[in-house]
Amino acid sequence: MIIDSSKKILIIGLGLLGGSYAMALKKKGYDVSAITLEQKSIDYALEHKLIDRGSVEVDEKLIGEADIIVFALYPHTFVQWIKKNGHLIKKGTVVTDVTGVKGCVVYEVQSLLPEGVEFIAAHPMAGREVCGVENSDDSIFKGANYIVVPTEKNTFSAIELCKSLGQELGFADVSVLPPERHDEMIGFLSQLTHCIAVALMCASDDPNLERYTGDSFRDLTRIANINDEMWSELFLANRETLLTQMDSYRTAFDRLYNCVKNADREEMRSMMRISAERRRNFDKKA
Amino acid sequence: MIIDSSKKILIIGLGLLGGSYAMALKKKGYDVSAITLEQKSIDYALEHKLIDRGSVEVDEKLIGEADIIVFALYPHTFVQWIKKNGHLIKKGTVVTDVTGVKGCVVYEVQSLLPEGVEFIAAHPMAGREVCGVENSDDSIFKGANYIVVPTEKNTFSAIELCKSLGQELGFADVSVLPPERHDEMIGFLSQLTHCIAVALMCASDDPNLERYTGDSFRDLTRIANINDEMWSELFLANRETLLTQMDSYRTAFDRLYNCVKNADREEMRSMMRISAERRRNFDKKA
Repeated sequence: MIIDSSKKILIIGLGLLGGSYAMALKKKGYDVSAITLEQKSIDYALEHKLIDRGSVEVDEKLIGEADIIVFALYPHTFVQWIKKNGHLIKKGTVVTDVTGVKGCVVYEVQSLLPEGVEFIAAHPMAGREVCGVENSDDSIFKGANYIVVPTEKNTFSAIELCKSLGQELGFADVSVLPPERHDEMIGFLSQLTHCIAVALMCASDDPNLERYTGDSFRDLTRIANINDEMWSELFLANRETLLTQMDSYRTAFDRLYNCVKNADREEMRSMMRISAERRRNFDKKA
Repeated sequence: MIIDSSKKILIIGLGLLGGSYAMALKKKGYDVSAITLEQKSIDYALEHKLIDRGSVEVDEKLIGEADIIVFALYPHTFVQWIKKNGHLIKKGTVVTDVTGVKGCVVYEVQSLLPEGVEFIAAHPMAGREVCGVENSDDSIFKGANYIVVPTEKNTFSAIELCKSLGQELGFADVSVLPPERHDEMIGFLSQLTHCIAVALMCASDDPNLERYTGDSFRDLTRIANINDEMWSELFLANRETLLTQMDSYRTAFDRLYNCVKNADREEMRSMMRISAERRRNFDKKA
């Protein structure tokens, strides 16, 4: 099964990501439907031609017609939805998602779905500091990474389909990782960075920071404007892995702290050189 | 003394900041000279019309003619230069700088300069992850903050002159802070953020990070490509203050760590809400 614009796509959950998926796929000529909680999200999406049709009900017709269903919900809502309505998905449908953690959802969802319905997980590494369908913007996928997260249960064809979906959406790089390795990567690259930004904003209540700041603080804390409902769920859904990543980082931070404390300039410079070299290589691969 | 383009400006140290100052001031019609270590920097600056004339010597004529001298050197080099050559600066000249820490240089430089030569410190909160005059770019001042850092020895007219220099350079906001408060602010906003970025890059040697990353990690570690010679000097020049700021941050990070460890979602969400609210206000003032 290769993706092409004859495929009917159903998006469940029209938030920022669901809406941005819809926007990208409609532009490519796909037939896009949506099921979401609020009528105003459907209205907005119809008015802005992000979808062809939508419902706030668990619409069996929409579900039955879909070739591909994309779940853009919080992890626990996703699992709940599948528990309650998974039996409505017709045989041959491929299900995918945008969930930010994988270990805690992938195996459960795969075991809950009816025979003949395949769930292939994916993580679009894109977002904004705003939410809701009215902030949909498919340009967030440009230059971004898309990770397909298969288990041993997945078929080659579903993995390929999911990879081509990432390409259709406009991602710059599509890669494949097992769930555990994905959660480790994301624990470090995404969750830990959000922890750092939150901790930094909580470390000072000085109201004058803005007048004296440079870009380093602005860039570092951009993600501090965080959706607490979503991120607290994501953190706890990846708790052990995140704690391990927080530990590694704290060890490195403490090492630098001791360099400053002991005025150990050579060791400090050595850490800075490692940092600069890694960051430069990081850019080169982009 | 109000600044206007009849003033002759001498820049000592033609690196990224010195060169960007020269570029901005030449565009405004000022007469700009430079003294720096390497002939190739002078050649580049002359060729690109950043300066009217320059020398790699401690040129008494250039120094004697200047109405305003801007030092764009590392802290210890700045102090050394003043010790060795400060007597060459003619009475009535106003001296300023771009040094990133103030307590350790301002009082010493003020005490070293000859009678009638006033040093008024300033910190342009702008920079790039590259150095050298060939990367000069006066657009880095646009939207940025400029802090004038007077002591009790400074006159009203020198403070005003320095403020108007910040405006001439194109800074969006010009403010005034005493040296101790400046160093505290910069310890938090600039030095601590560089510590965080360096520690984060040192926490993982995984060569595949780039393929799986999102913008949060990219933005947070932009400054990890750090000039180790300059920053290790700046860190140690502000050691006690930086340690205090590192402590505050570490306390907040540990609080969040414990939330994750104890699965205390309410406390975690409360920290996230404080973070989001502060960060949003931060943007509003911009």
